[in-house]
Amino acid sequence: MPGEFALIDRYFARPTPSAALGPGDDCALLQPTPGMQLAVTTDMLVAGAHFLPDTDPKNLGWKTLAVNLSDLAAMGARPRWATLAGALPDADANWIAAFADGFFACADAYGVELIGGDTTRGPLNLCVTAFGEIAPGRALRRDGAQVDDQIWVSGRPGLAALGLAQLQGRVDLPALLPEPWPRLCLAALEKPQPRVALGQALVGVASAAIDVSDGLLADLGHIARRSGCAAAVRLTRLPHLPKGERYDAGLQKLARECQVAGGDDYELCFTAPCAQHNAIGEIAAGLELPLWCIGEMLAGPSGAVTVFDPDGQPVEFQHKGFEHFD
Amino acid sequence: MPGEFALIDRYFARPTPSAALGPGDDCALLQPTPGMQLAVTTDMLVAGAHFLPDTDPKNLGWKTLAVNLSDLAAMGARPRWATLAGALPDADANWIAAFADGFFACADAYGVELIGGDTTRGPLNLCVTAFGEIAPGRALRRDGAQVDDQIWVSGRPGLAALGLAQLQGRVDLPALLPEPWPRLCLAALEKPQPRVALGQALVGVASAAIDVSDGLLADLGHIARRSGCAAAVRLTRLPHLPKGERYDAGLQKLARECQVAGGDDYELCFTAPCAQHNAIGEIAAGLELPLWCIGEMLAGPSGAVTVFDPDGQPVEFQHKGFEHFD
Repeated sequence: MPGEFALIDRYFARPTPSAALGPGDDCALLQPTPGMQLAVTTDMLVAGAHFLPDTDPKNLGWKTLAVNLSDLAAMGARPRWATLAGALPDADANWIAAFADGFFACADAYGVELIGGDTTRGPLNLCVTAFGEIAPGRALRRDGAQVDDQIWVSGRPGLAALGLAQLQGRVDLPALLPEPWPRLCLAALEKPQPRVALGQALVGVASAAIDVSDGLLADLGHIARRSGCAAAVRLTRLPHLPKGERYDAGLQKLARECQVAGGDDYELCFTAPCAQHNAIGEIAAGLELPLWCIGEMLAGPSGAVTVFDPDGQPVEFQHKGFEHFD
Repeated sequence: MPGEFALIDRYFARPTPSAALGPGDDCALLQPTPGMQLAVTTDMLVAGAHFLPDTDPKNLGWKTLAVNLSDLAAMGARPRWATLAGALPDADANWIAAFADGFFACADAYGVELIGGDTTRGPLNLCVTAFGEIAPGRALRRDGAQVDDQIWVSGRPGLAALGLAQLQGRVDLPALLPEPWPRLCLAALEKPQPRVALGQALVGVASAAIDVSDGLLADLGHIARRSGCAAAVRLTRLPHLPKGERYDAGLQKLARECQVAGGDDYELCFTAPCAQHNAIGEIAAGLELPLWCIGEMLAGPSGAVTVFDPDGQPVEFQHKGFEHFD
């Protein structure tokens, strides 16, 4: 029966050529690139709160790292290193091997090295701290939006929340939508793609950015509050909703709620001066990633986010986003 | 009812003058001191495995950070920053306030700034990642011990394990030992003092170091294995055991087991060339911290740790240390 150290050695010890000292000592040692700032983020994932207990461990490994890389992306930072601490209810070698597979697939895809960690027994809990680099003064912060800046969002926020509704039995997507929609919704939930390249491309272009983890309107609200502005979102400029052959009012309502309030998509929401509109179009083309200009920042109550219909009337939504402990 | 963000703002947002950007954005931003390496460590504490569920939250806050600073101490690094991620079963404001009190008492004592974190609902779990700085090539690693180096340990390893035995009802310390022993045992368990000043003083003096978290012999074994040596510990040179007015064989046996195999003390175990013996004595005097020269490294089976009695006979112990998942 292998002990903790043997398990860790077996599945998580990979070469770390970019670290001065990798896993296995009291600390890892990093030599930051001279002159660069270090962007640091930490996210804890708990079974039941952030993922279903029976989630495929390979997808879970991917997502555990991806949600942290999404925070680096939202700052425009280049991902470099990560640590992983985990509490596991038991030392199931197959589960750990599959988790490690997914984790390192994501690490390799984004050029990240795992430099250290901690393993313990306990209710399933996964905590990553991720490190990226960015030149001083260049990070995309939440507090840089200006009145009249345009508001943008990448990809199709809401798909992950639709995927979750499917897994929870609240909707039958395959019966309502043609492929690839049902598949895309599950993929958005289970294997989110952190917008690392987009974040780096937006450095010097965007005025503020955040990743959509709590819900589009809630996260846009964070930008608005920190920037001391209000935000106006135009309903007709939001990304098209997934649609079947026949219009289904229930599905459309659910899809819209997921789009504005569903968490877990890890798209980027950002603001930029109007003068950058064409540059952003070129970034979208270069990355083959749709970028939607969905509204503009306004002078107004700090943090207020309003969705307007084509008649200029505010649209009310039941939920605005996900907040823990409410 | 305050939401997650209000709770965090209220208890955990403190000024972070040494960070380029503190909590509240997608990432914190750090500007490492030019030319220095970054030492990074992460530790996860789980109720039941690392602390008793009814632990005083103020002590728990201290210990959650202290065990990470101990890893920085074991590298000789200067503590700078930390992140804190926590899963809490509920948002009990009193508990969180007391935990924050203890956490920041430790942070202030060692010059650490909390630069970011994450809060979520779940079974109680606390995960800190801590960052220190050290000049390139100067870190105290586990793999630097040489044959004939002397082996040292600070303070009185074993007190924390005795304190735990007291809390678990396995021994009645106040009935067996005069004060301050019972109080010192509980303090060692509940409010460990990371040996940060010692670690920094040992840079350029010690050849290898580790903090005693799993047990003295087990942790010394890590140094021995990584350094490709064996280790000989002299029973009579171990720190004196706590003793009452009358000799109690049961207590002495328990105290010895705790000394060699008890975890959770966060003393430093280190090796150094004999030529550094006097320098280490001066460090002990300067820090008013006892440092015990308990043995020496040998050519021999890599990782083997043997305790010898005064007749040169090996002494066997039931437990050698704590390993998860065994």
